[in-house]
Amino acid sequence: MLDVRRAAEVQVNNVIGTLHVLFAMRDVCPDCHLLKLGTMGEYGTPNTDIPEGFFEVMYRGRKDYLPYPRQAGSWYHWSKVHGSNNTMFASRLWGLRATDVMQGVVFGSGTELMQSDPCLRTRLDFDQAFGTVVNRFCCQAVVGHPLTVFGHGGQRRGFLPLEESMECLTLALENPPEAGEYRVFNQFARIHEIQELAETVRGVGLDLGWRTEVRRFENPRMEQEGHYYQPDHQRLFELGYRPRRTVEQEVRGMLSDLLPFRDRIRAYESTLLPDVRWAGSRRKVAALEQQSKALHAGAA
Amino acid sequence: MLDVRRAAEVQVNNVIGTLHVLFAMRDVCPDCHLLKLGTMGEYGTPNTDIPEGFFEVMYRGRKDYLPYPRQAGSWYHWSKVHGSNNTMFASRLWGLRATDVMQGVVFGSGTELMQSDPCLRTRLDFDQAFGTVVNRFCCQAVVGHPLTVFGHGGQRRGFLPLEESMECLTLALENPPEAGEYRVFNQFARIHEIQELAETVRGVGLDLGWRTEVRRFENPRMEQEGHYYQPDHQRLFELGYRPRRTVEQEVRGMLSDLLPFRDRIRAYESTLLPDVRWAGSRRKVAALEQQSKALHAGAA
Repeated sequence: MLDVRRAAEVQVNNVIGTLHVLFAMRDVCPDCHLLKLGTMGEYGTPNTDIPEGFFEVMYRGRKDYLPYPRQAGSWYHWSKVHGSNNTMFASRLWGLRATDVMQGVVFGSGTELMQSDPCLRTRLDFDQAFGTVVNRFCCQAVVGHPLTVFGHGGQRRGFLPLEESMECLTLALENPPEAGEYRVFNQFARIHEIQELAETVRGVGLDLGWRTEVRRFENPRMEQEGHYYQPDHQRLFELGYRPRRTVEQEVRGMLSDLLPFRDRIRAYESTLLPDVRWAGSRRKVAALEQQSKALHAGAA
Repeated sequence: MLDVRRAAEVQVNNVIGTLHVLFAMRDVCPDCHLLKLGTMGEYGTPNTDIPEGFFEVMYRGRKDYLPYPRQAGSWYHWSKVHGSNNTMFASRLWGLRATDVMQGVVFGSGTELMQSDPCLRTRLDFDQAFGTVVNRFCCQAVVGHPLTVFGHGGQRRGFLPLEESMECLTLALENPPEAGEYRVFNQFARIHEIQELAETVRGVGLDLGWRTEVRRFENPRMEQEGHYYQPDHQRLFELGYRPRRTVEQEVRGMLSDLLPFRDRIRAYESTLLPDVRWAGSRRKVAALEQQSKALHAGAA
């Protein structure tokens, strides 16, 4: 959502990258199984249940089994929709097998394996582009920054810990689809509201004796802040997925995990607040900048 | 459908080209009206009626007004879907106004204005990539080549003459949408079956004393050859569009229009038959090549 160059870059990467993988599969290994990462963000927040990819439609008295309409909310999320559409078509055209994972919001600072050796640690993002909300709240808590809830905080999404995301992807690989089958898995453990997640992180912070507070921040995005949200997520459960840890348990681990890195997070503290405007109106940008300044002044 | 290079090229052109136009509109002329050419091919051939872009869905007891699912049948048609999705999103995000025209199959060798001066004539395509079916049948008739119907010929599509396509686009421009409105027009005069169109062209040929014949040709594409097809097309009619000429009337004009160019068409006669395989199986390609050879031998 930064500018035209970055929008074009993400769409070329995801559309053309996927296209080349699909043609390569056709020509080199038509029997292999493509495990593609999509996102729950492809669906947006429609006012009906969200099936796993396809749904039976009755329209004017006639029935069909159709792709569920996508209503993504950013150029990135649309690039994933375009890639999903290309993958669905390639499977039908060439008989390829593919699993398209509509991944929910992943959070966590690591997996169990990563805890065993510091060399296995990977990057943790907490900025507006790559940082997901629970990770950002945890980093804010660690440096004593208010937890910033965008808008009313009534946004609902599906979430799962990083560890469980890996488990789900493994399950998909161990149970490949039939040749020519394009299947969609909605991958998440539970649905949470943003405001509720902020309260969870605040609660764990309070337990640790921190004075963590929650503040509303004018929403830089274009999204509904209170809405129906009921996506299916049965298929991975049918393959054996069982959520093992609650957000609260995971957050407790994350805060102690991140504490030693407090200074490194503080060094990038300005990235804890968004400065990219999605809707592009001047009024909105001015309001964001003012709020951002006030928060930085307050936290300093 | 030729190869990965051409597939990537058409998707970059249509996706990234559209993206740049949308950003330019936002930055330079947010009030102007984008008239974008999509195609009826974005929808594919679902088993329900096809609305104009959006439909009211009742799913598990809940209602929403959603984009009608797209099921395009070629990399080109998917590139148009991706562009449509980007345009829909930009309208919502930035309040742009856009008309996305899902154009049916256009046919005709010119418009009335073009008849007034030979300098106004434009290219006529009759090859597998750019030549639409009625134009190809007419060129085949003119050089005494069999009219080649792909598969059973039960494919149904919406058609309109070139002259009327121009009228429809003019109507859309003269009646722009509201700011922030993304509207979809399904643009065609009537629905025809491929087999029926071949018979129409054959009939006109017979009237002219030609021995035009119709032959089945193994379908090089991946498409349903007998299916339900009932797309809406009320919105342009509401703006005043009235189909003026039948396919038969238009074909009569085309055959006399193309006759003086018989030798130029004959020089490219090999392009009247497809050699690109869509599904990519070796068996299918071998069958196509054999048929193609036999037909060329017969026509020579």
